[in-house]
Amino acid sequence: TEAGETIRATLFPGDGIGPEIAESVKQVFNVAGVPIEWEEHYVGTEVDPRTESFLTWESLESVRRNKVGLKGPMATPIGKGHRSLNLTLRKELGLYANVRPCNSLPGYKTRYDDVNLVTIRENTEGEYSGLEHQVVRGVVESLKIITRQASLRVAEYAFHYAKTNGRERVSAIHKANIMRKTDGLFLKCCREVAEKYPEITYEEVIIDNCCMTLVKNPGTFDVLVMPNLYGDIISDLCAGLIGGLGLTPSCNIGEGGICLAEAVHGSAPDISGKNLANPTALMLSAVMMLRHLQFNDQADRIHNAILQTIAEGKYRTADLGGKSSTSDYTKVVCDHI
Amino acid sequence: TEAGETIRATLFPGDGIGPEIAESVKQVFNVAGVPIEWEEHYVGTEVDPRTESFLTWESLESVRRNKVGLKGPMATPIGKGHRSLNLTLRKELGLYANVRPCNSLPGYKTRYDDVNLVTIRENTEGEYSGLEHQVVRGVVESLKIITRQASLRVAEYAFHYAKTNGRERVSAIHKANIMRKTDGLFLKCCREVAEKYPEITYEEVIIDNCCMTLVKNPGTFDVLVMPNLYGDIISDLCAGLIGGLGLTPSCNIGEGGICLAEAVHGSAPDISGKNLANPTALMLSAVMMLRHLQFNDQADRIHNAILQTIAEGKYRTADLGGKSSTSDYTKVVCDHI
Ligand SMILES: CC(C)[C@H](C(=O)O)[C@@H](O)C(=O)O
Ligand SMILES: CC(C)[C@H](C(=O)O)[C@@H](O)C(=O)O
Repeated sequence: TEAGETIRATLFPGDGIGPEIAESVKQVFNVAGVPIEWEEHYVGTEVDPRTESFLTWESLESVRRNKVGLKGPMATPIGKGHRSLNLTLRKELGLYANVRPCNSLPGYKTRYDDVNLVTIRENTEGEYSGLEHQVVRGVVESLKIITRQASLRVAEYAFHYAKTNGRERVSAIHKANIMRKTDGLFLKCCREVAEKYPEITYEEVIIDNCCMTLVKNPGTFDVLVMPNLYGDIISDLCAGLIGGLGLTPSCNIGEGGICLAEAVHGSAPDISGKNLANPTALMLSAVMMLRHLQFNDQADRIHNAILQTIAEGKYRTADLGGKSSTSDYTKVVCDHI
Repeated sequence: TEAGETIRATLFPGDGIGPEIAESVKQVFNVAGVPIEWEEHYVGTEVDPRTESFLTWESLESVRRNKVGLKGPMATPIGKGHRSLNLTLRKELGLYANVRPCNSLPGYKTRYDDVNLVTIRENTEGEYSGLEHQVVRGVVESLKIITRQASLRVAEYAFHYAKTNGRERVSAIHKANIMRKTDGLFLKCCREVAEKYPEITYEEVIIDNCCMTLVKNPGTFDVLVMPNLYGDIISDLCAGLIGGLGLTPSCNIGEGGICLAEAVHGSAPDISGKNLANPTALMLSAVMMLRHLQFNDQADRIHNAILQTIAEGKYRTADLGGKSSTSDYTKVVCDHI
């Protein structure tokens, strides 16, 4: 990105509290002078046959064109004849890696103060194949699919991430002692990629043992890479260590270099429209997007302002035990930029 | 069990530290006057064709006959042409539920002091079907099988356990938002059983959210019931909350009323034979076996003696940061009985 250039990025404010927290991001971006022009897309009110979901075709085209975007929470409407919004996005945009840096926040006390790890989740296959059927009455089966292509792709991303982010170790999480062929293939791919990164330590950790170690001593982990379901579980477990999904940024890496940053918490309809939501996860996700665009200066300033605001502890939203409104908290972050 | 009667029980001391910690159990049972006569069985030195594993046919027959047993750690020898020892036991004895009470130990400090829950894991099917194959080069699949029969059986056990152990709530852990048919069937079975226990509160919790809540606030859970792999993961996570597998008892419920209590930690070959192992998990598992036999008086006395020894903190094995040998620690427990 050249100096002075304006970047177009897609914004999905999402549902519930989404629009409010997206507004917070716009404000901090303005104050930090981020040269981004948003293309805003809302979830549609009817199923778009081209996406088989409430997502509009235009919104997906916008991400494909801009290759960068930010997404708030999206609750899939209940009913038949359409696909989940989140799963459709992953599928249609080939979002193959979900990346979640997970760091203890100075000043926000949990039972852990030593978390500094990154989970990298394969995001397209595994237990999420959607292939299930009843064999005979009372016996159902579900297919977990592991491919060499998707495993190599996410492993490559994990090692590349480790190298370019000054990380020292990649742990592949698996249950290959039981699922020898599927998780075995995943490990084989990780080992192949590991050979190309001799400067990064590579290890393999069985998922049950990984979860036990995470709750005892999360400081022992650095970068974790894993198949879809393990990633779903472990990334939320890790979020819990630092205080929950309201504090955890995430970003999805997709085919053709797409980066779709995303707050992974829910849309909290109970507090929506009340100026009570915590915009931190979306703001931190937006920071990940800025780093992807190499707007490092703005990313650092916004990131530090958020950390400072939380560390000071005076302005916090209700989910963190504080009394601030979304807009007051956002204003303090803006003041700190 | 009538007064004065002697019960025959099978004992698998297991490998590595197994025989040492089994010796500790024998000592505390002697001191507490438990009327049990052990039938001791070791893992064989060659594959028994009738079990397709290093387990002898006679040892399985012993458990089938006695219907009650205690098992130390067993490391499956590496090589082909035989089955895993643990999986063979589960399969051959129809050990359909793995039960693990998980309680913070007074005086043994971890990051949590409010853990008081029980995990009940379906132990025979799910992701452990062993059915995997390569579809085409680079594409492998694994079958997860959920049956109505096994799901009802473990759900029945969980609700029965809750009721007979003064527990108030059963949470079924699942990922039915993704695996609608398999985990959906599991939930359907849990709901059916729940209807028969109106006095027990029933809830359903998605596994990622469950793990996040467990690390933030484990006190919110009571009894958790779940399919095989989730149980594998969550039971070890919970063990981590209270200090690890060296402190966590477990017991397997099998077809025809079998109860095989089991220490689920490893065989720790590095310290085996050195009088350094921690016998706590095996002793607490033996207590579960005693409760199953309704030797409640002896169970209480042994249980309290273990808790007291750990709470006093003076005699602890090295894994808990202490300096006691296995035999010294065991002696103190015996003194407290
Ligand atoms: C909502 C659900 C389908 C989703 C998942 O399981 O991937 C969520 O848990 C997540 O992690 O983004
Ligand atoms: C050793 C392994 C096969 C086993 C399992 O996955 O069930 C272990 O982790 C357990 O929980 O008993």
